[in-house]
Amino acid sequence: MAAVPVWSVDPRTGKQREQVAVEASADAVDRAVRAAHSAVDALADRSVRAAFLRGAADLLDAAKDELIAAADAETALGPARLTGELARTCYQFRSFADIVDEGDFLGIVIDHPNPSATPPVPDLRRYKVPLGVIAVYAASNFPFAFSVPGGDTASALAAGCPVVVKAHPDHPGTSERVAAVLRRAAAEQGIPEGVIGLVHGFDAGVELVSHPLVSGAGFTGSIRGGRALFDAAAARPVPIPFHGELGSLNPVVVTEEAAAERADQIGAELAGSMTLGVGQFCVKPGLVLAPAGAGGDQLVKSLTEAVASTEPGVLLDHRMRDNFIAGATARAELPDVDAPVTPGAGDEHTVSAGFLTVPAERLTSPGEHDLLLEECFGPLTVLVRYASEAEVAAVLARLPGNLTATVQLSAAEAAGQGRAAELLSLLTPLAGRVLVNGWPTGVAVAAAQHHGGPYPATTSTSTSVGGTAIERWLRPVTYQNTPEPLLPQELRDANPLNLPRRVTGAA
Amino acid sequence: MAAVPVWSVDPRTGKQREQVAVEASADAVDRAVRAAHSAVDALADRSVRAAFLRGAADLLDAAKDELIAAADAETALGPARLTGELARTCYQFRSFADIVDEGDFLGIVIDHPNPSATPPVPDLRRYKVPLGVIAVYAASNFPFAFSVPGGDTASALAAGCPVVVKAHPDHPGTSERVAAVLRRAAAEQGIPEGVIGLVHGFDAGVELVSHPLVSGAGFTGSIRGGRALFDAAAARPVPIPFHGELGSLNPVVVTEEAAAERADQIGAELAGSMTLGVGQFCVKPGLVLAPAGAGGDQLVKSLTEAVASTEPGVLLDHRMRDNFIAGATARAELPDVDAPVTPGAGDEHTVSAGFLTVPAERLTSPGEHDLLLEECFGPLTVLVRYASEAEVAAVLARLPGNLTATVQLSAAEAAGQGRAAELLSLLTPLAGRVLVNGWPTGVAVAAAQHHGGPYPATTSTSTSVGGTAIERWLRPVTYQNTPEPLLPQELRDANPLNLPRRVTGAA
Repeated sequence: MAAVPVWSVDPRTGKQREQVAVEASADAVDRAVRAAHSAVDALADRSVRAAFLRGAADLLDAAKDELIAAADAETALGPARLTGELARTCYQFRSFADIVDEGDFLGIVIDHPNPSATPPVPDLRRYKVPLGVIAVYAASNFPFAFSVPGGDTASALAAGCPVVVKAHPDHPGTSERVAAVLRRAAAEQGIPEGVIGLVHGFDAGVELVSHPLVSGAGFTGSIRGGRALFDAAAARPVPIPFHGELGSLNPVVVTEEAAAERADQIGAELAGSMTLGVGQFCVKPGLVLAPAGAGGDQLVKSLTEAVASTEPGVLLDHRMRDNFIAGATARAELPDVDAPVTPGAGDEHTVSAGFLTVPAERLTSPGEHDLLLEECFGPLTVLVRYASEAEVAAVLARLPGNLTATVQLSAAEAAGQGRAAELLSLLTPLAGRVLVNGWPTGVAVAAAQHHGGPYPATTSTSTSVGGTAIERWLRPVTYQNTPEPLLPQELRDANPLNLPRRVTGAA
Repeated sequence: MAAVPVWSVDPRTGKQREQVAVEASADAVDRAVRAAHSAVDALADRSVRAAFLRGAADLLDAAKDELIAAADAETALGPARLTGELARTCYQFRSFADIVDEGDFLGIVIDHPNPSATPPVPDLRRYKVPLGVIAVYAASNFPFAFSVPGGDTASALAAGCPVVVKAHPDHPGTSERVAAVLRRAAAEQGIPEGVIGLVHGFDAGVELVSHPLVSGAGFTGSIRGGRALFDAAAARPVPIPFHGELGSLNPVVVTEEAAAERADQIGAELAGSMTLGVGQFCVKPGLVLAPAGAGGDQLVKSLTEAVASTEPGVLLDHRMRDNFIAGATARAELPDVDAPVTPGAGDEHTVSAGFLTVPAERLTSPGEHDLLLEECFGPLTVLVRYASEAEVAAVLARLPGNLTATVQLSAAEAAGQGRAAELLSLLTPLAGRVLVNGWPTGVAVAAAQHHGGPYPATTSTSTSVGGTAIERWLRPVTYQNTPEPLLPQELRDANPLNLPRRVTGAA
């Protein structure tokens, strides 16, 4: 069977630019996984891993002009956004290098014997070891930060796990270039280049999650694709952890007082957040609960002005453009739904941002309006006009899980007055990140970050951004009554690697 | 449809003792889950939770005579063992109460704003919140420690999660009594009694894992039952974490030097470990790699004497007895398999301990002898006689995941000489707990404990024993730029609850 070509496509024209690879056969996937597996030992030394991560950041920085040009040609995201995204990506590599050096993620606990416990405790020493080869499924919307060099790859490498990335078809050329850079960084540390595998093609992705030598998977993408891979991971003879980020509405609640106080500001900021990157963020605010009445009307007016003046934009590919136009149209045609700014087609290759409004009562019980509770990828948001706090609670209770939930409060509410605390307690069960008087777009790389949430936001309780993302790729092992010379250095009494450890009992 | 009665059965006679309950209908499961769900808020206060856990331990202690008698009548495990198990169970409740007080499990991380990060870091504050109602599937072999009042229940309550337990049919009467005690402990703290649900019946168990208000599950039992429930948990519209402990061979490697040095001792200790509790431990050493030659022969001799002098014992139920006899017979009939002490039927209600030997070459590649690589629940172990270190490595490479892996070393090897370190590096990937010169039976309740391992030992990377078992029932939430009065107390600057926290940056 002839190899299927993989093309780099210009979303600004819909035309093929060049062939950059071929789809990986089952054999090719197997070779990539085996090559990655044979690099496990080379990652065992934490100082080598940290140097690899820092070297990767340096080489990505050095190649930035070429990489940003390649990514812009395939994604139309523009040099400014891509420059920021690549900087973030390099920062992320360096952050994980620091985490590797620090060693807190090893979760070392040492229990010296305790004969008075029930039953008695022997000498127990626990730390975490890497899972093995990790499959990474790249996202469409971040050709760097959630793709070949993204958080899944960086955290897996930090954990000591080689990766095989399934490239996203929206930026295969960028993926190839970045993989080459990462392999160079590996080679500089004496790590086999197979530590970073790269495969293209839908079938290759399915093959990958089923491969016996793959021990875990990270995914960022759609509910449909992610759920299919999650199901495949769970159905394996030996199931593996599948950490998938599948979709999120990112609800925002604007209180009546907040709307009365600063409707214009909220409208303008919401427009900025929902149209950022042509609405192609997983944390785009996709459903906004705004009050009926004058404050809410003013918010609609302000949002109308800001969105109407937004230039049409190019989506990542033409299939997405078709889906956006169809999805926006289907939503706009629902009974009682208005479109103060109609979302849909721009010129032949672009889309126009827009927003819809609907009375909350249409969403308080199941029905055709449930379509509005599904994420629509692109520059569209839905304003749900509520007449009472009961309606707010009723709509929130019907939402699926989310990455974020946001509340816009008045100054007095933000100071703790009124029912703000109650509102936060309604939002917390819905999401992994709760924001007050901010906007969910923009996800900082930080120790306290949590980018995840109840299903379908993520398929597990994990985060894909921030320091704790590394926990996904580790499993604990405890050594019992193991003589000092046979213990891993991390667990020896003298603590030769000077690692943070929790020690109980007397030595 | 008439309710299906649930009988308490005496395994010493196989006779029904009394009807103790009825199987739960779908409606009854729904009621139990809803009652549990309505107890979530009552568990929100950590000091209430800690008091509940300590009160439960006190009430279990106070009821011990009645509970041990009830459990012995249903399990035939004997008062001595059951006394120890109940003491362990109470110790476990009190340990988790200490963990709740301490608050480290909340995983609090506070990042003060950092404008120089890429992208800039806002004020982020992360901690962990309870998942919701947890389904607990009780084990047959521990009517206390892995059943209604066991580690899954204790850790879930500690996390702030109500539980609904699916009782094991081998001790339904004990389960009812214990549940009543726990509900009394709840009532003493003003917690609704529904915080501890209890349902009986196979169908009820399936219903439970599929209930929309169930947010996670813990399971201890067989591969077949556990995998079916794991699959059901993964197939839900909203999948939930399923932490199952399904089975383990618990391999032991006896080095040639160790056999030469102390074959008699190893044989006697192995006999003790494999016949403990009539071989009904999940950590029973089920596969022992012993050298060919004189040292190994002496080990066989010593093991023969010790096992042959073991009294027949009663298994937990007669179906297990049938399975054990059939499984032991099928294994003994394989070509090249010898039975120095034949395992099988004792009298009408008991089984006899025994062990088999097989040359390692029969297990180095797939074939009918792979039956020996499956757990056989009961007092049976398989001695694999190896002729070379290559054979040891080849057999180990074919093993499924395990809870434990053990090595018996000579004194010189334990001091680091020879290939002991290499051997440990072969065992570490196989298991969650690695032991040197000990035996896997006996699992201490401790911070550094890890009772879990690669599939099928567990379906996740979690532990069901020890302090970190609580992590299974929590998910992180991060608050961004949230004003002090609206933050949970745990995350406020003043740290009013005096919790351990990791704080970065300047306030």
